[in-house]
Amino acid sequence: MVRQEKLLFTPGPLTTSATVRQAMQFDLGSRDSEFIRLIADIRKALLRIAGVDSSQGFETVLMQGSGTFAVEATLSTVIAPSDRLLILVNGAYGSRIADIAACHGLQFEVYEVPGNQVHKNEIVDSILRGKKFTHLAAVHCETTTGILNPIAEWGATAKMNHCEFIVDAMSSFGGIPLDVANVPIHYTIASANKCLQGVPGLAFVIANRERLMSLQHKPRTVSLDLRQQLIGLESNGQFRFTPPTHVILALDKALEELIDEGGVGGRAGRYHDNHEVLCCGMKRLGFQEYVDRELQSNIITAFTYTGIPGFAFSRFYQLLSDRGMVIYPGKLATEDCFRIGNIGNLFPKDIGSLLVAIEDALGQMQSSDR
Amino acid sequence: MVRQEKLLFTPGPLTTSATVRQAMQFDLGSRDSEFIRLIADIRKALLRIAGVDSSQGFETVLMQGSGTFAVEATLSTVIAPSDRLLILVNGAYGSRIADIAACHGLQFEVYEVPGNQVHKNEIVDSILRGKKFTHLAAVHCETTTGILNPIAEWGATAKMNHCEFIVDAMSSFGGIPLDVANVPIHYTIASANKCLQGVPGLAFVIANRERLMSLQHKPRTVSLDLRQQLIGLESNGQFRFTPPTHVILALDKALEELIDEGGVGGRAGRYHDNHEVLCCGMKRLGFQEYVDRELQSNIITAFTYTGIPGFAFSRFYQLLSDRGMVIYPGKLATEDCFRIGNIGNLFPKDIGSLLVAIEDALGQMQSSDR
Repeated sequence: MVRQEKLLFTPGPLTTSATVRQAMQFDLGSRDSEFIRLIADIRKALLRIAGVDSSQGFETVLMQGSGTFAVEATLSTVIAPSDRLLILVNGAYGSRIADIAACHGLQFEVYEVPGNQVHKNEIVDSILRGKKFTHLAAVHCETTTGILNPIAEWGATAKMNHCEFIVDAMSSFGGIPLDVANVPIHYTIASANKCLQGVPGLAFVIANRERLMSLQHKPRTVSLDLRQQLIGLESNGQFRFTPPTHVILALDKALEELIDEGGVGGRAGRYHDNHEVLCCGMKRLGFQEYVDRELQSNIITAFTYTGIPGFAFSRFYQLLSDRGMVIYPGKLATEDCFRIGNIGNLFPKDIGSLLVAIEDALGQMQSSDR
Repeated sequence: MVRQEKLLFTPGPLTTSATVRQAMQFDLGSRDSEFIRLIADIRKALLRIAGVDSSQGFETVLMQGSGTFAVEATLSTVIAPSDRLLILVNGAYGSRIADIAACHGLQFEVYEVPGNQVHKNEIVDSILRGKKFTHLAAVHCETTTGILNPIAEWGATAKMNHCEFIVDAMSSFGGIPLDVANVPIHYTIASANKCLQGVPGLAFVIANRERLMSLQHKPRTVSLDLRQQLIGLESNGQFRFTPPTHVILALDKALEELIDEGGVGGRAGRYHDNHEVLCCGMKRLGFQEYVDRELQSNIITAFTYTGIPGFAFSRFYQLLSDRGMVIYPGKLATEDCFRIGNIGNLFPKDIGSLLVAIEDALGQMQSSDR
């Protein structure tokens, strides 16, 4: 079957480089010494991106599956039956943390604000203070809208209240500078397939080793047991269960390309440029940004289409797809809003091509509307 | 980094074809219509390999992660708190089912026999009969030793005793003919990366749709909820959480190549030839088969090295690896035994090359032993 090569303006799976995909042209034994070295190198490289190393008490725990698997691994492993968790929600990924907490019968409360707002730190503080919470969980960049949450503030508040801090950094890790030790974040959760620009199938947690190893309560799952996964990695350097070897080869290459780009700073610069070109062009075409500019990340942007004549989202999506440009196919549930991703192996010229396609699509929708 | 291309004589990750790996040179949006069609095609193709179609009441549920993730998804989703499960164990993968059952607090019993024996059907029957079990779980080909368990007999016994039958067919699916409807097996669990010759990162369950959908008890996990995964696939054709798109492209190509080889029958024929060449050559070199020939599969073979002068397994493994041949690096816990896989994109000539390398390695070990 002949497939048309398309550019993905989505928050993952995203457009990867041809060289990252070529790195998968290789079969490695998952218990062979060469693969064991590769795992060790990747675990170290991910710590460096988080701004820490093993001597500071952090370790990378790799986990098979999507990012949600690692979020569930963290929550289901870390939160003891007697613990109390506060979850900050301003989008679908915050809500998902709450769904996981509910499924495992954890003691938790949710503090929710609308998708284009961030939680007030004073309120977070007062909630934590009053109710003896042991853990705070939040999303760094809420992929639902692209809003960037002030995790450094919340981390300080969590610390003052003697809470462990769990951060879903899925769509920010590698694309937004992060200093895990100083925030501090005890469990930072991310995936190979967002700003690291690998392929999907692997997630990971940058974990405070001492906290994780000291857990005493009964594990809730076998596959998603974060503590046993670390014990496995440390005992013989291997995954407990078959890892996605080709996905890991792709991540290794992707991490090399991140360094070549100047590390997180260099990549953040390109994403910033992508975002600028996108927002400027979309404004010219009549779209409005759903989140105030000062609260936005450079990762993904939500645009409202109220007032665009003849606009129908599913037609719009298809017209762009026919032109080889794939945007995120879902609308926001509560707003006339769609999302465009700025991450992956995309450059301002690609954003330019997307804007041309969007202008064409709008013209076509308006002319057929007449 | 330059990597030496090696042949993997392991039970997965295994040697794939270059064309399967090339299929991963492509980024697809996981919610795009093209990918949704691909998922539908793969789900149908996997049903056909299991000898069934949707009209017979079976559906394929795809699951991110390793095979164990799908085993845990099945057990943790399917077994209600009031259910009683009998687990037949004659190797590590049977034991893993018991570990999962214990972790989730299921009511279960284990009937275990040594790794080179199969369970007597009369005893299975008498256990099921006496104690009002609702479910029977077993492994088809126990990868630990390569022993092939008589699941057709056990399926009939389960049916007579009104038990649902759960089969871990990880290392047999696609390499040994299977007739899911007639056994009958209610949940058949396998992975993309064994006899289907895809790459690791995706597992699946051929599920009796009515049984799965009728479950009423509270889900035990979010990510591994097999029922919700099916509901997701049926509602919009998508995975609930990001799927490993490149791994799925590889599986699509691998399924095409399975058909080109003449389906499961054709592939089973090649594996049979691999196994014959291997066993004949190993006998000539002085190794003995751990499992009686009539109980063996053609998937993986365990050899004892008692009586081979100068034999040291870790040296042996390294000498073969240096020659570009990777065998399974672990020994059996209780026996002087190692395993060689016959599956993957390997042909009798490759087994011949392995035998030459083994003869060389033995010579080298013996000369340095003098």
